[in-house]
Amino acid sequence: MTSRREAILRASATAIAERGVRGLRVSDIAEVAGVSPGLLYYHFKDRDGLLAAALTYINDQALTYRQAASGSSSSREQLVDYLLAEIQDLPEVVENSLAWNELRACAVYESPLREPLAQASRQWTAETAEAIRLARTLGEIADHTDPDQAAVTITALTEGLSSRWLSGELTAEEARTHLRAALDALIPPKQSRHAELR
Amino acid sequence: MTSRREAILRASATAIAERGVRGLRVSDIAEVAGVSPGLLYYHFKDRDGLLAAALTYINDQALTYRQAASGSSSSREQLVDYLLAEIQDLPEVVENSLAWNELRACAVYESPLREPLAQASRQWTAETAEAIRLARTLGEIADHTDPDQAAVTITALTEGLSSRWLSGELTAEEARTHLRAALDALIPPKQSRHAELR
Repeated sequence: MTSRREAILRASATAIAERGVRGLRVSDIAEVAGVSPGLLYYHFKDRDGLLAAALTYINDQALTYRQAASGSSSSREQLVDYLLAEIQDLPEVVENSLAWNELRACAVYESPLREPLAQASRQWTAETAEAIRLARTLGEIADHTDPDQAAVTITALTEGLSSRWLSGELTAEEARTHLRAALDALIPPKQSRHAELR
Repeated sequence: MTSRREAILRASATAIAERGVRGLRVSDIAEVAGVSPGLLYYHFKDRDGLLAAALTYINDQALTYRQAASGSSSSREQLVDYLLAEIQDLPEVVENSLAWNELRACAVYESPLREPLAQASRQWTAETAEAIRLARTLGEIADHTDPDQAAVTITALTEGLSSRWLSGELTAEEARTHLRAALDALIPPKQSRHAELR
């Protein structure tokens, strides 16, 4: 990715997080990026093209901080860290989460956003399912867990709790505590024989 | 509630569901309701007052169709029906869910919405916790379930899955199937001694 293209996408994420998608114009994003609107049209064709590229960028950014968050040794704990990384009071995570939350809500009203959103969301879900499958194979997650089913559920739950955090109903810490407790039920650690008899 | 006040709030929910909150003016709602903007200001003081009243109305409507949905005999099944009722392809449920989803997303940008939203959301969570507590007391939900913790999680998950349904990523049926499966883990039916040894 050229640095100018990246600067434009970074500015798009900032503009979406700060102002929302509704009513957001290409010229607003050009202003935040400090470039001419013509350059944005040159790179992204139109507003829908720019929003779709911004969505992919935001999803890739989330992947970056998810991966950075994980220092745990077990695969299951790595996955838990990776999900908890979505909810952190760090400026770049807040901005990225706000932009994702807003794009999700806007896709209801702006149909051209739906397919890129669904694609990014499926990618996140598929990565999560893969991580569950790996941890299950390694004997860290209970055998009865369905990776694909659990992946949809835990990513949707992460979005739901994230939305309560972003709208000020839960603190980041509360949302993370709830997420961690839910993960114990949704992707249960494989129990020892002793624990199963409790 | 007088019928005129109710008609205004119904029109507000429709306007929010169709057009979103951002940029929505009191005069737009007056137009949908077929009344003068002056009457709206008389009843609700200003736009924030009207949106807060609409939010409460939308939450009350959801309660109505949740209660209508439940014909099950066990308390746990009643609770499951009540949660699944949030995700249905019925026009009134779609409209209500769209409006709620939009208000949740907008609260990030419109701070006067946050307190009424948090209040309505806490009410829903408290009702859910109460239902979990009852079903647990009746021996239908596993004793180790924490009602308050589980209530936050399952209402946030319902919102997360609802958002994927409204943005077209999951069908209502898929979202309901995922919700039902997750509830088996989050509010597990109390198992017989035999089942615990499996």
